[in-house]
Amino acid sequence: MSALARLSELGLVLPPVATPAGAYVPAVRTGSFVFTAGQLPLVGGAMAATGKLGAEIDTAQGQRLAETCVLNALAVVHDLVGLDAVVRVVKVVGYVASAPGFTAQPAVLNGASELLGKIFGQAGRHARSAVGVAELPLGAPVEIELVVEV
Amino acid sequence: MSALARLSELGLVLPPVATPAGAYVPAVRTGSFVFTAGQLPLVGGAMAATGKLGAEIDTAQGQRLAETCVLNALAVVHDLVGLDAVVRVVKVVGYVASAPGFTAQPAVLNGASELLGKIFGQAGRHARSAVGVAELPLGAPVEIELVVEV
Amino acid sequence: MSALARLSELGLVLPPVATPAGAYVPAVRTGSFVFTAGQLPLVGGAMAATGKLGAEIDTAQGQRLAETCVLNALAVVHDLVGLDAVVRVVKVVGYVASAPGFTAQPAVLNGASELLGKIFGQAGRHARSAVGVAELPLGAPVEIELVVEV
Repeated sequence: MSALARLSELGLVLPPVATPAGAYVPAVRTGSFVFTAGQLPLVGGAMAATGKLGAEIDTAQGQRLAETCVLNALAVVHDLVGLDAVVRVVKVVGYVASAPGFTAQPAVLNGASELLGKIFGQAGRHARSAVGVAELPLGAPVEIELVVEV
Repeated sequence: MSALARLSELGLVLPPVATPAGAYVPAVRTGSFVFTAGQLPLVGGAMAATGKLGAEIDTAQGQRLAETCVLNALAVVHDLVGLDAVVRVVKVVGYVASAPGFTAQPAVLNGASELLGKIFGQAGRHARSAVGVAELPLGAPVEIELVVEV
Repeated sequence: MSALARLSELGLVLPPVATPAGAYVPAVRTGSFVFTAGQLPLVGGAMAATGKLGAEIDTAQGQRLAETCVLNALAVVHDLVGLDAVVRVVKVVGYVASAPGFTAQPAVLNGASELLGKIFGQAGRHARSAVGVAELPLGAPVEIELVVEV
């Protein structure tokens, strides 16, 4: 089943591509790779929530925000090359705005990783780095970037 | 117009390649990519400023430091493959040392992105991730790495 | 001398591949690249130490933890493609959990970079980004990811 068909079966819709937060583009294709910009949990142009994991945002909410970041990233990939051109999700880097002592970044980012698995199956199995950072743009709790092979 | 000609027209000069801050090299070419090391705002071997955005460093100064990081990165690319070999700037990752509550990382990194646009035109349009981090090497306020296609 | 032979000469043994901390895989090969997941200083499934550089962990200990991250990363590469398939270490990104004011991330990551040099010689010379972050998964003091050419 294609990624687009699977997305539909999951009841998910790719959002419009979010306007970049600065003087850059949402993604670049080079050879057989697409590198996305870091994607924030924007919904309809507004941040779905702001704050840090371990303070204003709990892990379950963080997982949903990570899913939103992934949908935004996939919208960007779809806009550039078409989602069904994706051969493999290669790498996910997930930055989690973390209050002191919050170390469950992997649990938060499982929201992203599991959604990629549901959409792409085996082709969604990716390498991942999870990092807890001090602050993210516009107060975002989570930021996610993808490298995909097309 | 070539990137080198454009740089000259902008009145900019590539600095000497900064000595890496550790046991690594400034950049690696592999196939059609160059990956640079994270570049700090070093000028003549000394940090142009130290401190955090949202505390000692304001956004306008951060933008100028981001420009300095980009010039250092381009010096490294030029030294390795020649600046005019660049086909496309693919990805910029910008780490901004951020005091609590500072969330204007995108504005700071626009200093880098806009300079790349001036130098490379359409070929300078890149994907970007902006992150606010706790600390950077040697107290740097900004660190920037590039992936370019050659 | 092959990387495996050199590893043996150094008295080092690749550990078993650590179970990923989430819903991802330890590494992905795509074309002539292997991207590893961020590797933590796990030994036998447990974190070798927890805490931050500049607080609970000193630079010398951080360097040893960075070496452990590299051995875990190389185990992952070996499991996927065989260590002797590595043509070049391209990029190292090192995240260092940093207490306020700790700016010696490069010194910590030299533990990683120098070990790669000992194992791979010239082929181990890589570009590197060093960043000081707020928190890392499971309280890890250091996390390291590699991009290698195979």
